[in-house]
Amino acid sequence: MRQTNDLFTSEVGAKRNIEALDRVYTANARILPPGAPMIEGRAQIKTFWTQAIAGLDIKGVTLATVQAEVAGDSVVEIGRAELTTNAGQTVVAKYVVHWKQEDGAWKWHTDIWNMNQ
Amino acid sequence: MRQTNDLFTSEVGAKRNIEALDRVYTANARILPPGAPMIEGRAQIKTFWTQAIAGLDIKGVTLATVQAEVAGDSVVEIGRAELTTNAGQTVVAKYVVHWKQEDGAWKWHTDIWNMNQ
Repeated sequence: MRQTNDLFTSEVGAKRNIEALDRVYTANARILPPGAPMIEGRAQIKTFWTQAIAGLDIKGVTLATVQAEVAGDSVVEIGRAELTTNAGQTVVAKYVVHWKQEDGAWKWHTDIWNMNQ
Repeated sequence: MRQTNDLFTSEVGAKRNIEALDRVYTANARILPPGAPMIEGRAQIKTFWTQAIAGLDIKGVTLATVQAEVAGDSVVEIGRAELTTNAGQTVVAKYVVHWKQEDGAWKWHTDIWNMNQ
């Protein structure tokens, strides 16, 4: 799971390598972003993050697990995220991710977040 | 689970019966509301909802399950909420709830949501 989160922060957040999302989200994952309807499927999720990272001009992302609880063959994680922008802003968010295994790797199957302020 | 959601909509949303939250949330539940840090424990959650329902002047709430997935001895639900205010506004939100059983009843153990707009 740490590898997957590291992929998101190092590849997607810092390098804008959107293709790395193949290794972060399950094929039929769902994201529930603030200010938009739910988005289903990895292709649509890639489009969302491409636009969000460019639109917010994100410089980097950090993720910190607050709690990870085993639930059958899945895991429910509560976490804290910090997004920094190239303009020097920092946004603190919190999230819940429902993790599942796909092709032997732990991935985000359901991902919902919101901002603390 | 439907009974629990009905309790929230009929007792908490419509009648502002905050004590009914004892039957909705587990004792050590966590909520992750937009615009605020995570809140832990049913007592604090009651304080949050007392203030939120009064502050937004909520008239009613509807909850609709989009997907409920069994995860071990728990359930992960994705849902859609509609809040109406006495001023006639409607706010559409989406949520993820991690359900657990407590004292033989299904309750919300982790509850995170955000608005669609």
